[in-house]
Amino acid sequence: MDILLIGANGTIGKAVATELGQRHRVISAGGNSGDEHVDLTDLASVEALFARVGPVDAVAIAAGNLHFGPLAEFTPEQYAIGLNDKLMGQVNVVLAGQKVLRDGGSFTLISGVLSDDPITYGSSASMVNAALEGFARSAAIELPRGLRINVVSPTVLTESLEGYGPYFRGFESVPAARVALAYSKSVEGAQTGQVYRVL
Amino acid sequence: MDILLIGANGTIGKAVATELGQRHRVISAGGNSGDEHVDLTDLASVEALFARVGPVDAVAIAAGNLHFGPLAEFTPEQYAIGLNDKLMGQVNVVLAGQKVLRDGGSFTLISGVLSDDPITYGSSASMVNAALEGFARSAAIELPRGLRINVVSPTVLTESLEGYGPYFRGFESVPAARVALAYSKSVEGAQTGQVYRVL
Repeated sequence: MDILLIGANGTIGKAVATELGQRHRVISAGGNSGDEHVDLTDLASVEALFARVGPVDAVAIAAGNLHFGPLAEFTPEQYAIGLNDKLMGQVNVVLAGQKVLRDGGSFTLISGVLSDDPITYGSSASMVNAALEGFARSAAIELPRGLRINVVSPTVLTESLEGYGPYFRGFESVPAARVALAYSKSVEGAQTGQVYRVL
Repeated sequence: MDILLIGANGTIGKAVATELGQRHRVISAGGNSGDEHVDLTDLASVEALFARVGPVDAVAIAAGNLHFGPLAEFTPEQYAIGLNDKLMGQVNVVLAGQKVLRDGGSFTLISGVLSDDPITYGSSASMVNAALEGFARSAAIELPRGLRINVVSPTVLTESLEGYGPYFRGFESVPAARVALAYSKSVEGAQTGQVYRVL
């Protein structure tokens, strides 16, 4: 397969590249790194990415920013960061990609454990991650030509515990390599409309 | 209790006013109707509403717009309608209201069945409804002073079948009066962080 991996330079992206690169051609993309650069928040930039890369069999995304902060101080503008970036950035990939992926191709998006297991300061993450899961369940029944879509929802990464551990007390962490297996299941399996929770 | 009901003029809003009005003082609000007018998409307008109404014991929302259309033709601007209106409109009520509700007060938001039971043309609804449920789960653990938040998720209304029935074939409809009972449970009960599915 030809697999476009967006966010290839992050902790999860590198693990996905390692896992899928053993059996497939991986084209890496990112905001400032990888074979191809793209601004996911701009649909035209995503369309230009697909025009450059050409048809692929799968798109896997391991990218997305959002704001963390106390609910008491959150602003609409801070929620907009996650809505525009992690949510609509990935939706833009589906909007553009549904026209150019090869028949039977797949989208693999990323959400996160906070969609249904919240932490303090995480209201935007819970909102955005749940939105991605709802979107994917719905898109799965409308995508044409056998195209599939799934979401990988990882808990906190073992590799990120040093930075984020205090916000995730009591959460069991997972290594990025385990998260990469969920991407493999989505890309190399046949399911659609699923949320793969890696806990 | 003093209950601020936003979207009081809609099918669900009227049923909620009937249910809660038997035992409480209901202040109605809406975009163009009710005792008070408000633009939920504008946080300043929501703050001004609370300044006029004064402290209340509960806010119940039965309002929110979003776009329906085929995934193949959906645009970011069409997703923004639902994100700005049904999603952030209700989030703005929580952002402003958390500072002014009386101790132990409650927010009751509205999502909808499509969050996890999608239909064709409903990708924005699935996204927005799931986002609201994720947000409420998270906000519930951060709200101060015993404030509570729940979401009512109704399936298609019996009163709406004439217009929307063709999009919801096979869904059992519910009368708005049953949906209003879920608002009663949220406002007059003691739970928080719950999604009340009325199916």
